[in-house]
Amino acid sequence: MRYITGGIALGAALVLGTLATTAQATAAPTQPARTGGLYAPTELVLTVGQGESRATSTIQRAATLSCRPTATGTHPAPKAACAQLRAASGDLSKVTGVVTNRACTKEWNPIVVTADGVWEGHRVSYTYTFSNSCTMTDGKGQVFEF
Amino acid sequence: MRYITGGIALGAALVLGTLATTAQATAAPTQPARTGGLYAPTELVLTVGQGESRATSTIQRAATLSCRPTATGTHPAPKAACAQLRAASGDLSKVTGVVTNRACTKEWNPIVVTADGVWEGHRVSYTYTFSNSCTMTDGKGQVFEF
Repeated sequence: MRYITGGIALGAALVLGTLATTAQATAAPTQPARTGGLYAPTELVLTVGQGESRATSTIQRAATLSCRPTATGTHPAPKAACAQLRAASGDLSKVTGVVTNRACTKEWNPIVVTADGVWEGHRVSYTYTFSNSCTMTDGKGQVFEF
Repeated sequence: MRYITGGIALGAALVLGTLATTAQATAAPTQPARTGGLYAPTELVLTVGQGESRATSTIQRAATLSCRPTATGTHPAPKAACAQLRAASGDLSKVTGVVTNRACTKEWNPIVVTADGVWEGHRVSYTYTFSNSCTMTDGKGQVFEF
């Protein structure tokens, strides 16, 4: 029961926080608004690594991506990435599974991309392996463009 | 080989980007600096959910936390959270395993906290279950204080 009470208090704090922001309080928050309570959370960590699988790959780059209430994160183009994810209803396989006419060599120099976190309240853990950097060029989408 | 070349080009772009930022270029980036190349990435998604396990819990809140180059994210206190993680060398079990003298009831109303992503280049996937909200009060640390 204490937890539920805490939840209500949290909700009230969030509403107050929102009002304060609207009224442009002098103590302006330096961080983006908290997503809890108002929106189903959408927060992801994306990685790009060299290797065959999630377990064995060496992470080369990583970025955070939050899509609610606004597109933000260390991702260099969060708006475009969130737009693409939203268009795919959060289905990452539709983002990375792009088929193109690009001619690629067939060498095996795999690159693993991963996405972990939450999409609209649902847990996400996604892995996709590109056979080499050429196949990744079109296949990475906006989401893994970092 | 193409990939390695791309990596060097990326590094150069990042250095140029950093210089441009230092010189306060008019086209100022609206997003935090990219972490790839200069720092081992540290990017996490943290969740708090009701339930017994990662698989079955309902996510109530989620936040992103980036600790390099600066502490940022949708986490409400990224500096404090990153400081606590750094003090524990990224070991989340040291953050959530705090023993206190707080008297708690023993009812089973579990709360699951998770952390996924990358800590200094290494993949992280952490789950901890608190038996109820009382045990979570001290045990959540700064990291899960959102």
